[in-house]
Amino acid sequence: MEYHISACVQNLKPSAIREIFKYAADPAVISLSAGNPAPEAFPAKEIAEISADLLANRPIDALQYSVTEGYPALRNRLAAYMKENHNVGREQDDIIITSGAQQVMSLAAKTLCDPGDVVICEAPSFIGSLNSFRSFNVRLRGVPMENDGMDIAALEQALKEEPRARFIYTIPNFQNPSGVTMSMEKRRAVYDLAKKYGVLILEDNPYGDIRFSGEPVPCIKSLDEDGLVLYAGTFSKVISPGIRVGYAIGPKPVLQKMIVCKQGQDVHTNIWSQIVCDEFMARYDYNAHLERLRKLYREKAAYTMDLMDRYLAPEITYNRIEGGLFLWCRLPDGVDMPAFCKESVLRKVCVVPGNSFLTDENDPCQSFRINYSTPTNDQLARGIEILGNLAKEVCR
Amino acid sequence: MEYHISACVQNLKPSAIREIFKYAADPAVISLSAGNPAPEAFPAKEIAEISADLLANRPIDALQYSVTEGYPALRNRLAAYMKENHNVGREQDDIIITSGAQQVMSLAAKTLCDPGDVVICEAPSFIGSLNSFRSFNVRLRGVPMENDGMDIAALEQALKEEPRARFIYTIPNFQNPSGVTMSMEKRRAVYDLAKKYGVLILEDNPYGDIRFSGEPVPCIKSLDEDGLVLYAGTFSKVISPGIRVGYAIGPKPVLQKMIVCKQGQDVHTNIWSQIVCDEFMARYDYNAHLERLRKLYREKAAYTMDLMDRYLAPEITYNRIEGGLFLWCRLPDGVDMPAFCKESVLRKVCVVPGNSFLTDENDPCQSFRINYSTPTNDQLARGIEILGNLAKEVCR
Repeated sequence: MEYHISACVQNLKPSAIREIFKYAADPAVISLSAGNPAPEAFPAKEIAEISADLLANRPIDALQYSVTEGYPALRNRLAAYMKENHNVGREQDDIIITSGAQQVMSLAAKTLCDPGDVVICEAPSFIGSLNSFRSFNVRLRGVPMENDGMDIAALEQALKEEPRARFIYTIPNFQNPSGVTMSMEKRRAVYDLAKKYGVLILEDNPYGDIRFSGEPVPCIKSLDEDGLVLYAGTFSKVISPGIRVGYAIGPKPVLQKMIVCKQGQDVHTNIWSQIVCDEFMARYDYNAHLERLRKLYREKAAYTMDLMDRYLAPEITYNRIEGGLFLWCRLPDGVDMPAFCKESVLRKVCVVPGNSFLTDENDPCQSFRINYSTPTNDQLARGIEILGNLAKEVCR
Repeated sequence: MEYHISACVQNLKPSAIREIFKYAADPAVISLSAGNPAPEAFPAKEIAEISADLLANRPIDALQYSVTEGYPALRNRLAAYMKENHNVGREQDDIIITSGAQQVMSLAAKTLCDPGDVVICEAPSFIGSLNSFRSFNVRLRGVPMENDGMDIAALEQALKEEPRARFIYTIPNFQNPSGVTMSMEKRRAVYDLAKKYGVLILEDNPYGDIRFSGEPVPCIKSLDEDGLVLYAGTFSKVISPGIRVGYAIGPKPVLQKMIVCKQGQDVHTNIWSQIVCDEFMARYDYNAHLERLRKLYREKAAYTMDLMDRYLAPEITYNRIEGGLFLWCRLPDGVDMPAFCKESVLRKVCVVPGNSFLTDENDPCQSFRINYSTPTNDQLARGIEILGNLAKEVCR
């Protein structure tokens, strides 16, 4: 049987990272390629307590069908939390619960983009989001990243040249994969350009709560008096990614359409896990929990950057990070980056080649991505030493 | 701000049933309009036991990111179970876990249909699936239902007239909303026509396990030697709908594309709940559990049909059911069905007008749908008596 596959889907490829995971699944391989929270970060005891109570005292609430827009108590609690802590949300906004922040990407593209429309994104950017956008047959227009966020002149150029641009996709804090945080000045500039050109902003903020040094920069959404910003949040990095609970805060007319699309995608997000997230915020000291995570990641990132300074310098350079899960490493010009990554796999260390994160994978790229949160300290030490030795060999 | 909404989504409306739920939310209203499993049907104690063990002994498995195609142990167990019990699955097939069976509808339409393509469906059919298909800008072509399933001549006519038909959507067991089960003869005829015209079949079987009388009819997928059938199953009616765990069994090339689409939609289905489903099948007597559900629904359906015979006859007619959750009721010709449903809401009883389930809501329809599984016995008695009194008044 010859299957007719839709034009949107025909050319979709599984994420390159997934292909790399096949190597990473070999227990002898040290994987620095994942994006998983540290196993020590999960509040497993608290989740077990909440869940036991819930199933003992109100099991039907946790197990019966629920409403598409999400568990009302969680929506209210999150809306209040985001308003109070981040000045996110205005009268014109609403909040919905989604199956991870990934679903926000899918619902936003489905709601806002026709085939042939354009999404403007950071280059490099998170491949999971880029692939989700691609699945709606949109064209991606990349804007180069600088050390303080998007190149604003290039962004304006893109907005001028792309009348079918529907939204600007940005991860302003500890961007995946570059680790870059956008400056306040650039956040204002992006917002002003979006307003000038009548284009929305999709602000994806999975790592914002994991700032372990430096000063927090306000969300772009906190500037939003005009209904221009759709904000995507998630519990994946602060409670658990396996339970797939995220949320979107944005203009009501857009969210209303996203709700209708969500109904057709999965009816509603796992309600048991939604209640667990709500009770976790209600019963425990949420800010103390975030502080505990920050301490964990601060120590692990410092340990990793010490190793990198010792083993990777001077051949491989990187920008120090103040939060998030990723380090973006650069090989000297002239070194064949894809060949370097392939050889590192043969030496049992897995990293992600940087071109995977570009709008066009064939563009030149000298960088690769390291994740420090998933491996053990021992794996980090061995893995980074192997990468350093390889770099010294190829640069000799 | 004027928002650009995509052509696919612009004309989507929330399900009419959801609008009715607004009335049904009034505690004074008796809702016969839901589609929820009976609250007594949930194995809450077993779920609590499994979950406590899981979070105590291997919390990281339940809380960390997982793979898009689903928890391997559950995939293997379900594949074996479906093969052994239903002869479903061949060498050419694979199985993936989805966020409820609803996600199978969304992934199938996304993978198989371009805008303007056609999905052939039963008329009436499940509105949640129809709306999911509509959200991909496909055209729905309805085939009238008879007491033993689709009108086969009308199906062939549709296949002849619709060269862009991509799949035939059917709920062969205890169809929602009609309660009809397709005969074995018609299942073979549908399969043969699909083969003749080179069109796939999407077989949606949420209620098959809830047969409480009569003889089971084999799945269409059990006939599938040609890779023509995509089968959608779910734990929603047999374990819990709130945890959103479903699955698809179908030809590998189609499932591979669906996996890529799923990655962009929600990365993977809640892994905690996937493991709970797997352990439930492994640790407990699954068939004894299904028998307990059948007994529960057998008694409740019999109780309901007794009430209907007493209060609704002769004005309102219906077909007796052998399984599933719904009863399809017909008003005499000449009675204004929508007006009847509106008046019943004013009298505090909520049913679903039958035209909600048609491919064109404006088509004439004399039927409405009753659900018997969600209300209490007392609510059923009061609600059906009110409907009967109303029918007698309007038919006077």
